[in-house]
Parts: sequence; structure tokens; C-alpha cells
Amino acid sequence: MTSTFKNAPAIIAEQWYNTHQAPDLNQLRGRMVVLEAFQMLCPGCVQHGLPQVQRIHDVFSREDVMVLGLHTVFEHHAAMTPVSLVAFLQEYKVTFPVGVDKAQGVGMPVTMSAYRMQGTPTLVLIDGQGRLRNQWLGVVPDLIVGAELMRLILERRHDNGELR
Amino acid sequence: MTSTFKNAPAIIAEQWYNTHQAPDLNQLRGRMVVLEAFQMLCPGCVQHGLPQVQRIHDVFSREDVMVLGLHTVFEHHAAMTPVSLVAFLQEYKVTFPVGVDKAQGVGMPVTMSAYRMQGTPTLVLIDGQGRLRNQWLGVVPDLIVGAELMRLILERRHDNGELR
Amino acid sequence: MTSTFKNAPAIIAEQWYNTHQAPDLNQLRGRMVVLEAFQMLCPGCVQHGLPQVQRIHDVFSREDVMVLGLHTVFEHHAAMTPVSLVAFLQEYKVTFPVGVDKAQGVGMPVTMSAYRMQGTPTLVLIDGQGRLRNQWLGVVPDLIVGAELMRLILERRHDNGELR
Amino acid sequence: MTSTFKNAPAIIAEQWYNTHQAPDLNQLRGRMVVLEAFQMLCPGCVQHGLPQVQRIHDVFSREDVMVLGLHTVFEHHAAMTPVSLVAFLQEYKVTFPVGVDKAQGVGMPVTMSAYRMQGTPTLVLIDGQGRLRNQWLGVVPDLIVGAELMRLILERRHDNGELR
Repeated sequence: MTSTFKNAPAIIAEQWYNTHQAPDLNQLRGRMVVLEAFQMLCPGCVQHGLPQVQRIHDVFSREDVMVLGLHTVFEHHAAMTPVSLVAFLQEYKVTFPVGVDKAQGVGMPVTMSAYRMQGTPTLVLIDGQGRLRNQWLGVVPDLIVGAELMRLILERRHDNGELR
Repeated sequence: MTSTFKNAPAIIAEQWYNTHQAPDLNQLRGRMVVLEAFQMLCPGCVQHGLPQVQRIHDVFSREDVMVLGLHTVFEHHAAMTPVSLVAFLQEYKVTFPVGVDKAQGVGMPVTMSAYRMQGTPTLVLIDGQGRLRNQWLGVVPDLIVGAELMRLILERRHDNGELR
Repeated sequence: MTSTFKNAPAIIAEQWYNTHQAPDLNQLRGRMVVLEAFQMLCPGCVQHGLPQVQRIHDVFSREDVMVLGLHTVFEHHAAMTPVSLVAFLQEYKVTFPVGVDKAQGVGMPVTMSAYRMQGTPTLVLIDGQGRLRNQWLGVVPDLIVGAELMRLILERRHDNGELR
Repeated sequence: MTSTFKNAPAIIAEQWYNTHQAPDLNQLRGRMVVLEAFQMLCPGCVQHGLPQVQRIHDVFSREDVMVLGLHTVFEHHAAMTPVSLVAFLQEYKVTFPVGVDKAQGVGMPVTMSAYRMQGTPTLVLIDGQGRLRNQWLGVVPDLIVGAELMRLILERRHDNGELR
């Protein structure tokens, strides 16, 4: 299969929560990565995006799928500081690793810019070769996300010669 | 791949709605079949099962996935007759083909018995070779159904030499 | 207070379920009556109307509020017969009294016509003097229904000299 | 009617949003006050409490019912500062007046203590005479809140001689 997919930009985070080691897309090769870009004061993230990736985190095997959150603050910067984020993650029982996207002044943070995201929530699927495969802004149905996840899981297994 | 899956039993229906031709699993080979066994007066079917397969019907390509409903009346037979079913399908805007499972007295109808279903709603996934692959009683998350659907779609494409 | 409210038309039912005695608005004087006109195959009734009056039935004292259902079939008559209704009430765990509005051919049944209802679900509030006080077609918020119920309960208590 | 209800403690706020003038229970006499004590990072407040009082704010007349929010931070103080609250109110489209309960160290703030609240969300109903009439911790159904609101509205109108 000749790839026409670009490599996913690196995730540049100032700090990480819910993990002892900063996740690195290069080291996650072989597994799919589900990246949820969110803001803690974004209602659509709280109601849809974060519960959805928490379901993915709960349903899929860690060996197949790694769920990462990324706090991409592009507005109300003073309102969504790390200390607020920590309380938010605790109160909303978010258990997967969450990074803080590196700020650059009062605009979009670094990783959010590199992915050319338009807002939050944005859901990103990165395949086992580190390539950017899907990027959705807003609400995307579980049925579609589940199907795309399996597509990428099986593709990797196939490439690894695990199938047939 | 050596199959360890059994062939799905035939669907024996007294009549069909929302279709001009009675669907036949043998003729559907090459496509996946999603079979939703329901009763029109079963709250779990109305709230979860039927909306879920309607979403599948709306999201997936007809060339990949064929959604079939099966009215498997095993209680309150006099209450859920075909004339009532027709009104139900219209009021609830069900647009995929729905068959009426062939009755055998006051117990479980023929197809429901052949699949050894325990109640309604029951969701069944049949692969492109006509084999029974998944059967769930009750509520199953969209994330899981979406993933299993894609697994079977890709398996068929692979068997057909459409991949690689 | 000079009444400008009309008496609620009599409820003419062919039969009643969930009660040993046919409710009679004249005999219910002194209590408020909440009348829910529904059809068992009407999605809005199943999703909103019936759960709402079941909540009213569960929350308010029987001495204050009497909840009555009325199966007002004005379409699909052959699909919503009494035998189907009985199974419906059982499966959906409806526990308040439900009458079958007296049919008149294939159009609107008798009580539905007398109240000049436009469709289902229709929620009707009848005060302790048997007067028609509110009639809503479609979804009406619990907050408003709760407020109107209390208004009528207190009005009756006041008229009875129970207050002050 | 001999009152057995206590006066509602004063609301001691450090600052107010969505209003030009700090609300004062003494000046609100004659109207009911609905007080919603919440924390911006409390999931039950975001999902249930705040949407409920926003519905009250939208449904009832301002002449009958005044809705006030009170940010009663008793944990994660550094995470829920006024600057964060302002962004929260904007993002969640809260339009009624919201005060910041006066802090006293790292424990419960002043007003929350005076009302002896046990947590958030807490919903408080204060009658037109400034008396504390209902105080609920957690989720309380709209049907019950609507009924209690109308009870207090009518009681006031009656005391004012507006009825009969």
C-alpha cells in the first residue's frame, strides 16, 4: 500500500497529567493514537468529546489504541490554567493522559496550530505508522469512530503480518 | 483462514415490509447483514435497538452492509399482529426491510428459535460468507458495533482481494 | 372569583384498565384530574407524554391529583386495538387508569372530539370543580406542568377553606 | 398563618456578574428568590443544577421569581477563581446574576456556611418575605420545583390581597 498520508505533527506539551512519562508519537508507533483536543470550559468538549474518548479508553485494548487528551487553550487563557485543569480532570474523572498544548502568546497553542485545528473539540486518529488519518471538528458519531478505529487497528495487524 | 464460524440459519419470514423482494441470506453473500430481532412493544427495542440499526442503515454503504429487521413475537401475539406492525413502522419511520418471523403457536417463532435467541432486542452480525459472527442480547454500545462492522467489511474485502 | 372556565366534557370510554371502577369526572370533584390523551403508536406520547404523567402520578398525592390516560385512536384504528393496548400498558409499566375513548367510525373518537383536541399527546388539566383549565398539544415542560398543578391544588384548598 | 420559617441568611458576595447592582434579599422582598449554589467544576451543577435554574429564569416572570447563582467554592479554590468563572458563565451562556460567595480561607465560604449547605449543587427557595422555604442538595425534579415555586408565588399574592 503506497502511503498518501502525512505524518502527524509532534505533540508539543508543556506538561502531562495522568502519566509518569510524556507520550511521544514516535515511541507509540505500532499502536493507534486517539488524540482529543479540548478546552475545559468548552461545553461541547465536556458533553460529547471527552465522554467519547473516555469510552474509547475503556472499550479498546491499550495495546491497540492509546487515548491522549490535549488541552488546547486558544481563548480565555487566564481562565484555563494548569491548576484549573488538574481540578477539572479530577472532578470529571478523566483517567487517560492529558497534555497541555504549548502556549504561544494569546492565540492558538503550538500543536493545535501544527494540526491546523479550527476549534474544540477536535478528534484526531493517528495510525500505527504515526500518520494522520482522520481529523474531525465537533460531534462525530460513535458508530463512525468505532469503525475507523477498527480499520486502522486491522491495517496495522495486517502490515505486521498478524493476519493470514 | 480456517473458518470456525457456523452458517447463519435462514430467515424464515411470513412477509416483508419496506422491500419489494424477500431478502435471502444466500443472495446477500458478499455483503454483511445486520439483523435486528425486535418486538414492537418492547421498550428496549424502541429506545435502543431500532434507533441503533437505523443509524447503521443511514451511515454505512448499502454495498457493505444490509440492515434487516425481524419482528420476532414471542409474547402478546394477539397484540403485535402485522397490521399493528405496519402502523408502527410508519410512525417510527423505520425504512429498512422488516420481516415477520414465522410463527409456531404461542411460543418463539421459527427464526428466533433457530438462532437460539433469549429475548429482544437481539442484534446479529452475519459476514459476507453468510456466517454468524456476533449475537448480542440487549444494549450494545455503538462504538463496539461500529468496530465489529468494520472488521467484517474489511475481512470480506480482503478475501475478495480488494485490499493489497 | 367569578368563574370563566367551562366544565370539562365527560370522558366517554368503552372500557378502562388499571382500575376496578370507571372514573367519572363528577365523582372526582374536589380533586384535580390530569388527563393524558395518547396513542400507543405515537412516538411523542411514548417518549414524552406518558413518562411525564407517570411522574405526576408518582410525585403527587392521590388526594390532590388523579392521573387518567385516554387512548384516543384517530388513525391506524386496526393497529391499536384494546388487546394491543393491554400489552402496551404492561410492557411500558403504565400503572394509572387508562380508558379507551369511544370510537365513532374511522375518525376522531368521542371524547377527543368533545375536547376539540388536535392530535396526540394532549395534556389536559381539570380543576376540583370539574372545569377545563389547561390543554396542551405536544411537549410541555415539567416546570410549567408542576406550577399549574400546584396552582389548581391550592385554589381548591382555598375554596375549601383549608387555607387561612 | 403563623410563620415557623426562619429568615434566609444574607448573601455575602465578593462580587457579582450579569448584573449592575448587587442583589440584596431585603430589597427583593415581595418576589421569590431561587438561589443556586454551584461550583463551576462540579459535574452535577453543570449537567443538572445550572440548566434547571436557567429554565426557571426563562419560564417564570421576573416579577414573580428572581434567579440568583452563587459560586460557593469549597474545594479546588485556586482552580475556580473569578477569572475562570467569568469565562465559564460566558461559555455556558448563563444569563442570570451570579455572585461569588465570600471566601474564608480554604474551607466553606461565608454564605454557604450560613445556610449550612452540605455540597453543590444546592437549590434554595426563599419566599417573598425573605424566609427560607426549601433547600435541596443534588438533583430535584422540575415537577417538584415548579410546584413549590407556584406555591410560594400564590402565597405571596394572597398575602398581598391580590387573590380573592
